[in-house]
Amino acid sequence: MTPPILLTPGPLTTSARTRHAMREDWGSWDERFNQLTAGVCEQLLAIINGAASHHCVPLQGSGTFAVEAAIGTLVPRNGNVLVLINGAYGKRLATICEVLGRSFTAFETAENEPITAADVDRLLQADESITHVTLIHCETSTGILNPLASIAQVVKNHGKRLIIDAMSSFGAIAIDACEVPFDALIAASGKCLEGVPGMGFVFAEKHALAASQGNCHSLALDLFDQHSYMARTGQWRFTPPTHVVAALHEALVQYAEEGGQPSRHQRYANNCQALLEGMAELGLRSFLPAAFQAPIIVTFHAPQDPHYQFKAFYERVKAKGFILYPGKLTQVETFRIGCIGHIDATDIRAAVTAIAEALHAMHINLSLPGSPV
Amino acid sequence: MTPPILLTPGPLTTSARTRHAMREDWGSWDERFNQLTAGVCEQLLAIINGAASHHCVPLQGSGTFAVEAAIGTLVPRNGNVLVLINGAYGKRLATICEVLGRSFTAFETAENEPITAADVDRLLQADESITHVTLIHCETSTGILNPLASIAQVVKNHGKRLIIDAMSSFGAIAIDACEVPFDALIAASGKCLEGVPGMGFVFAEKHALAASQGNCHSLALDLFDQHSYMARTGQWRFTPPTHVVAALHEALVQYAEEGGQPSRHQRYANNCQALLEGMAELGLRSFLPAAFQAPIIVTFHAPQDPHYQFKAFYERVKAKGFILYPGKLTQVETFRIGCIGHIDATDIRAAVTAIAEALHAMHINLSLPGSPV
Repeated sequence: MTPPILLTPGPLTTSARTRHAMREDWGSWDERFNQLTAGVCEQLLAIINGAASHHCVPLQGSGTFAVEAAIGTLVPRNGNVLVLINGAYGKRLATICEVLGRSFTAFETAENEPITAADVDRLLQADESITHVTLIHCETSTGILNPLASIAQVVKNHGKRLIIDAMSSFGAIAIDACEVPFDALIAASGKCLEGVPGMGFVFAEKHALAASQGNCHSLALDLFDQHSYMARTGQWRFTPPTHVVAALHEALVQYAEEGGQPSRHQRYANNCQALLEGMAELGLRSFLPAAFQAPIIVTFHAPQDPHYQFKAFYERVKAKGFILYPGKLTQVETFRIGCIGHIDATDIRAAVTAIAEALHAMHINLSLPGSPV
Repeated sequence: MTPPILLTPGPLTTSARTRHAMREDWGSWDERFNQLTAGVCEQLLAIINGAASHHCVPLQGSGTFAVEAAIGTLVPRNGNVLVLINGAYGKRLATICEVLGRSFTAFETAENEPITAADVDRLLQADESITHVTLIHCETSTGILNPLASIAQVVKNHGKRLIIDAMSSFGAIAIDACEVPFDALIAASGKCLEGVPGMGFVFAEKHALAASQGNCHSLALDLFDQHSYMARTGQWRFTPPTHVVAALHEALVQYAEEGGQPSRHQRYANNCQALLEGMAELGLRSFLPAAFQAPIIVTFHAPQDPHYQFKAFYERVKAKGFILYPGKLTQVETFRIGCIGHIDATDIRAAVTAIAEALHAMHINLSLPGSPV
């Protein structure tokens, strides 16, 4: 049986070559493995043009571990964080600040509305005690893209520091550290780089990281310590997920071969367009206006039909070889489909066909005119 | 080129079957993956006979992440920890308490001396304010085994709670949760279970875990939250290292096929004996008295010869197919050789031959009588 294609925002479908890179065991103390890690960090920094300004600090665990590590390490204990929220991952940033005991103010917009630079300007003007701003670049809970560049400029104009959760955008959406000022940008192995999950990484501005000793609430999540140790020894401070690192290294080789960020973005944009068009033909409406939609993950309204049940729908589509993703909105019933991973528009069109067949078999009537089911 | 055999205490040499289990991508929300996780937790609990008394809480990251999570979650903020130390990993427990702001007292013995139950009895008698005791079962920095059962009994007699770092012993050395009382026992995927590195797990006593809400200093490392979410949904709270989990599942199948803990212990004991005998024949002395030596990792004194340099020695042995491990003692020059992983006594004897040849080629004269080099 062929394993299903994951239309999920990470873990996602990886290439056989990437998974094949995990067929070897690596000694974590060995020079060859140190070189592997150094190569990964160098390639990651190159993606954001950040070698001069930032360090890449890899961290064991999921992306959230790296996000918590960035906040805990870079926000001093007497810092004050403006948390920008338009979805579940923004809310998680507020929870992290709360658990860590960092003062914060939450600013929340509707889940289908981007945060704007004007919002941030007004908020920073109103409260001078704010030291740091945190932003989700692409909110995986809906797929909305927030305007990073203009927000970063406003934060800089106010002399404040920016921490960006770019978990689901990094690698696919252009970010240039020479143009976009930030203290930290966080992503992970198992997203648009198409590695396997198991490690995150933080691009930390060099001076901000150097000044962060003693800030962190945690030993394991202390990026200052993690970086110092690696700079001194070439090794990870604690046991690294060696196979995950090897897979990411191989995924980055393929990323470069494909043509780097512009090509990755183009493939995902093609996937997203094929998905939006195909689903519109079925009569399934996307949640976001096209202008705010990142080509990463798309949220669809669930069919307004009493026969519809996500679980049954999911199982039928899965039986046809595609894994969908549940919705994460509290007010509206939705489901999500990822555009990312080692897939192309042909896979997406096959998924749309599978969805059409599943809905048809479930006797689900889509009310839009021209619906073929 | 055949990759070298890792004679290191994790990451270690895994079986091809275990690595092969990583050739598939898994949806982290999918029922099949939930079953995989549930199966892993069930098998882990069975190893310590702990299903009735403990929950198994898996955690992303290295073993140290799980150790910090256990201390942060189970020791209340006004707790007071007695940290038992006879090596680098014991010292790390003290560092964790310090970073987390938990009060603690450190008790340290020499690195070649086990902590005794009498020590712990005396210490608990002297300071009634102690609430928790932390112990390293097998200190990987030397290979020494601490007498867990007798210490656990003393801790219980005083009405105190025990947290055990069993990172490098779990799975190979018998531990029965029905006989050894503890609040938490911590281990990881890439040690004696012969999985790949990338996740740890904590066996947490059910009542202690239930009472721990709100203790933790961290969102990512909160075992109460991690467990509650998994109990409710069957899923990991944050993105799991899916391939690492799949590899551990496959490693546990092989663990059972081999005959479980007694067989794993026997194979490692055979490895350890072959290693000690072979190295003694070469004139290389082990650091620990045989009575305290766990069959996990052995520390050897470096040759007292001006031609000896660990780095050059390491490279020569590596060229012959074996990765050694550096020493971790500050007072004495040593190196270490692991007995664990998917290896047997034949591999160990081949490694000893490689070591003999490397020393001979380096013109290193071992002073013991009968030395063949």
